[in-house]
Amino acid sequence: MRELRGKAVSDCIKEEIEKKLPELIKRLGRKPRLEIIRVGDNEADGSYARSAMKKTADFGMEAELKCFPKDIPEAEFASYVKEKSDDSDTDGILILRPLPEGLEEASKAVLKPEKDLDGMTEKNQALVFSGDPSGFAPCTAAAVIRLLKHYGVEVSGKHVAVAGRSNVVGKPLSMLLLSENATVTLCHSRTPDELLKKQLANADIICTAVGKAGFLKSDSVKVGAAVVDAGINVNEEGRLCGDADYDAIKDKCSFISPVPGGLGAVTTAVLCENLFKAALRHSLR
Amino acid sequence: MRELRGKAVSDCIKEEIEKKLPELIKRLGRKPRLEIIRVGDNEADGSYARSAMKKTADFGMEAELKCFPKDIPEAEFASYVKEKSDDSDTDGILILRPLPEGLEEASKAVLKPEKDLDGMTEKNQALVFSGDPSGFAPCTAAAVIRLLKHYGVEVSGKHVAVAGRSNVVGKPLSMLLLSENATVTLCHSRTPDELLKKQLANADIICTAVGKAGFLKSDSVKVGAAVVDAGINVNEEGRLCGDADYDAIKDKCSFISPVPGGLGAVTTAVLCENLFKAALRHSLR
Repeated sequence: MRELRGKAVSDCIKEEIEKKLPELIKRLGRKPRLEIIRVGDNEADGSYARSAMKKTADFGMEAELKCFPKDIPEAEFASYVKEKSDDSDTDGILILRPLPEGLEEASKAVLKPEKDLDGMTEKNQALVFSGDPSGFAPCTAAAVIRLLKHYGVEVSGKHVAVAGRSNVVGKPLSMLLLSENATVTLCHSRTPDELLKKQLANADIICTAVGKAGFLKSDSVKVGAAVVDAGINVNEEGRLCGDADYDAIKDKCSFISPVPGGLGAVTTAVLCENLFKAALRHSLR
Repeated sequence: MRELRGKAVSDCIKEEIEKKLPELIKRLGRKPRLEIIRVGDNEADGSYARSAMKKTADFGMEAELKCFPKDIPEAEFASYVKEKSDDSDTDGILILRPLPEGLEEASKAVLKPEKDLDGMTEKNQALVFSGDPSGFAPCTAAAVIRLLKHYGVEVSGKHVAVAGRSNVVGKPLSMLLLSENATVTLCHSRTPDELLKKQLANADIICTAVGKAGFLKSDSVKVGAAVVDAGINVNEEGRLCGDADYDAIKDKCSFISPVPGGLGAVTTAVLCENLFKAALRHSLR
């Protein structure tokens, strides 16, 4: 078994960016700049925001974090997003999701697709859906593909089971896998247990984005399968863990991404890469 | 085995529209009006255009067909689409696809989503992708759901194999099935034979949109499965047929849609329903 560790992937992405960053900074007259917007006090958001801030600085770029209370009025929130979207000193925007009802719709409408680094706008959703790589896919979904490719896990022609059908991970990931010529089964909370187990246990690659500790058990994993775990949960002992029952599965599969240490570092690196791309396009306009 | 015949579904849709049409005509001061745009001389397009024209008239609405040569310049084509999209006497537009390269991009950009009856614009793609039923899905994909529902074929909790990953049928259909709580496997031209056969043979419902006569054979169908055939092909004897080997499969499955006689009539009825909806929204603006 080989661990799909995220740091090595992140380091590669960093190296690529560092080669081209000085020229971009010269052209912009400043470092590429990311705006992170957080609503409410969800601990997972806080932890992601901190990692993203740290990673952006580590990659030689800048990030600023803006926090709003949960009950911020839609109009006020949208007006802030619009201001940053129109601001020529902001190259990219990351709005942490899920957002309280209404705020996502309101902010999506005023966020420019070219600054929408996490693929939440209709334009980027449509590009991902239609298999056009020119847009921004949600970072977590894109990170799964990067992680698999980095470790040479073949996707083309394979059967991939994706668990979780969110608009942020499961659905866009399915579309990206399809573009890589995988045959994809999308399972979710309404998939009957027996069918779920059958689909998982027959898959060459399993991607979980369910948000439930212990969701993926050893008897649902084929010997030699690859497992990418996009879950971020806290287990009964209060420790960070993924959706997979890691210890039970690790000796059965060919590859598995640990949590922590797996997909998270790739996700923030992809975010930085998207920031770099957005700033580059910005500088060329 | 029960045949999933399209006419009965179309008749139901017609009945619903006829109840509400007189009031809409009064409000518009005219009948709802559809513009069909065809490029090139593909026989399948011609046949679909004729059916759509006939169905629209039969449903008490109006349609006009505009044909362009294959080599029409992008700008000229886009300008025509824009003219119709801006025309207040046109409620809905159907552009027959696939289009020659470049024309789809050019026309998508100027087609108003609220007149885009076949769900080709980014806005409608994004709505279908994110499971929002307020937009227009491609008519064929929407027709599959209608056909299944009409005949009481349960979709929720079932395993559905979709063969074909086009942006017009396979991908949007997968998203619509997901919204109905199906567990969906999307197979395509790069799915290895063995995997394809396994996925099809284990599915409760099979939807084919491959465009290959004889694609779905009896040994790939589970006893009692339901089959919806979205293929339109001409077989060796020159007769219209679907993707399924109908005669060999019909005694094995619980439901099967014939070609001709199946999905086609539902697709044009859904088109008319979309026209009605677009005209209604138009009249309320």
